[in-house]
Amino acid sequence: MSVTERDAAPLSWDGARLRILDQTLLPFEERVLELRGAADTADAIRRLSVRGAPLIGVAAAYGLAMEVAERATPEALEEGSALLRDARPTAANLGWAVDRVRGAAQAAGPERMAAAARAEAEAIHAEEDEASARMAAHGAELLAGARRVLTHCNTGALAAGGRGTALAVILELADRGTVGVLVNETRPLLQGGRLTVWELRRAGVEHVLLADGAAAGLIARGEVDAVVVGCDRVAANGDVANKVGTYALALAARAAGIPFVVAGPTSSIDPELDTGAGIPIEERDADEVRRAGGALLTVEGTPCRNPAFDVTPAELITALVTERGVVAPVDRAGVAAVLAP
Amino acid sequence: MSVTERDAAPLSWDGARLRILDQTLLPFEERVLELRGAADTADAIRRLSVRGAPLIGVAAAYGLAMEVAERATPEALEEGSALLRDARPTAANLGWAVDRVRGAAQAAGPERMAAAARAEAEAIHAEEDEASARMAAHGAELLAGARRVLTHCNTGALAAGGRGTALAVILELADRGTVGVLVNETRPLLQGGRLTVWELRRAGVEHVLLADGAAAGLIARGEVDAVVVGCDRVAANGDVANKVGTYALALAARAAGIPFVVAGPTSSIDPELDTGAGIPIEERDADEVRRAGGALLTVEGTPCRNPAFDVTPAELITALVTERGVVAPVDRAGVAAVLAP
Repeated sequence: MSVTERDAAPLSWDGARLRILDQTLLPFEERVLELRGAADTADAIRRLSVRGAPLIGVAAAYGLAMEVAERATPEALEEGSALLRDARPTAANLGWAVDRVRGAAQAAGPERMAAAARAEAEAIHAEEDEASARMAAHGAELLAGARRVLTHCNTGALAAGGRGTALAVILELADRGTVGVLVNETRPLLQGGRLTVWELRRAGVEHVLLADGAAAGLIARGEVDAVVVGCDRVAANGDVANKVGTYALALAARAAGIPFVVAGPTSSIDPELDTGAGIPIEERDADEVRRAGGALLTVEGTPCRNPAFDVTPAELITALVTERGVVAPVDRAGVAAVLAP
Repeated sequence: MSVTERDAAPLSWDGARLRILDQTLLPFEERVLELRGAADTADAIRRLSVRGAPLIGVAAAYGLAMEVAERATPEALEEGSALLRDARPTAANLGWAVDRVRGAAQAAGPERMAAAARAEAEAIHAEEDEASARMAAHGAELLAGARRVLTHCNTGALAAGGRGTALAVILELADRGTVGVLVNETRPLLQGGRLTVWELRRAGVEHVLLADGAAAGLIARGEVDAVVVGCDRVAANGDVANKVGTYALALAARAAGIPFVVAGPTSSIDPELDTGAGIPIEERDADEVRRAGGALLTVEGTPCRNPAFDVTPAELITALVTERGVVAPVDRAGVAAVLAP
């Protein structure tokens, strides 16, 4: 079911049904989708109607809660968990959120399974909202004085709880003083040009859009004070998988001597993963590269590579901003410390 | 005047009129434009119907020759020269070619001006064809053994004399053995996706297209043996201006320890320019970023930055391949030596 709606929230929960703003249509149409179980939530995640590592965690948690609200059985719990976990491979938050809801449901037993799953999903959602506010405060303190901030992809309310991750830091900086944001369009799916521009415009924050290839040259020319991005999975050594195109920004920031800051909730950290080399990188459909905005951009049928993410080594990252505080330097000890109870 | 034509040459000269394949329409339509003087040649260069640093040099040379064939006066020579020189700011070859034709015409005097200008333009064209073949041989020798080569923008017959600059090197490598080419789509104007794919397909050389942001991650993952690009202007110290997005590739190649090779004729070298910091960088219209293939990609009216080029410092460049030989290391002494008579 879908309806066109003005000023809809990126994701909302009424206690029984999950409603999401279909991000594939933004910024041109604001259409709300109502999701009713694990299968349609997994579909929405796979086709990027809902996206952003923390937000797909929240959506998957609700998807599983809705599934066991319909069928409160161990089989439904297992099937729903598998379906949601497999929707996309790279973000750590997806498996983390599914495991939390599944664990809570199992512990509660068949009779209280539905209520426990729902309570756990709601807790995850509330925690991610709270995490956003804390990241924003930590990040804005770290970057006080940065006036020209470059970002990649979308890391706002369309990607995470509250006002997002990296974009929450930027909006907090803007609340505290004048900030201009340089936004990479983020090919192939243009999350920067479609989603970040839409959010910054709504927030009234000054911004300019650029082709992804232009970022490194502008950084080298001294036109950027800091680069701030989100993350999809952080390995135990601090290596970060994020939207494809991130790694080159880290190289350019290092060469120019400006901060390269990653913001993400601790739910994005995967302590089981030794280094970034082990992070599974999703390869998406070639047509995403061949087309943009519906238009064919190359010879029809041209073979493409379309990795959705790349890995930035920890040594290029100035700081990792989490809801529990700032990790700097970004290394094994720092990551372990921020995860310690 | 324009006509649709199969298998037309990128640029052809019949002794009186210049015909170019309109590159703004490729790969979807093959339309040939006939140019008749300095003004319409300058227009064609400005709107990128003809592009690529060496090829706009050749086109401008013919544009000026056609202008003085109509009006063999010092005024026509000066006006035509200024119009063509100012068509685009970054490529060194444009001013270089115009100055050569202008100098030859002036030296010949009013009576022989038209014939001298035409002969000089034809000489430039022949030299650039010859330069391409020599660069291809030098570059293929340098990169013998490279099987997976990444390139950016378009540097083939659509960009230079003969089979081009960097793409001529790649085609020569392919003639000598199996080569797969990774092609950056090259936003905003997609010269990789539109033009390089079209040329590689015609040549029967295996290729895959990628979003520009994907290149650095694939280089880091060991999927590329060498990066080969063209150049629009080379400073006396070896710094290179090339299509926006080039600099990040050089950083990624350095980090991965693979060769980053620039190919261009010596007409791209500007010995008057001390370093890359002095290279004028063309900033083009925001609509090029907002749109692709006619489709709107962001909120209408979004402010954009659209630098068409960036500068790669000499120390990141493994070798500069010219028609006179290979400059390596790329430094002031090497650049001076390759220019020495």
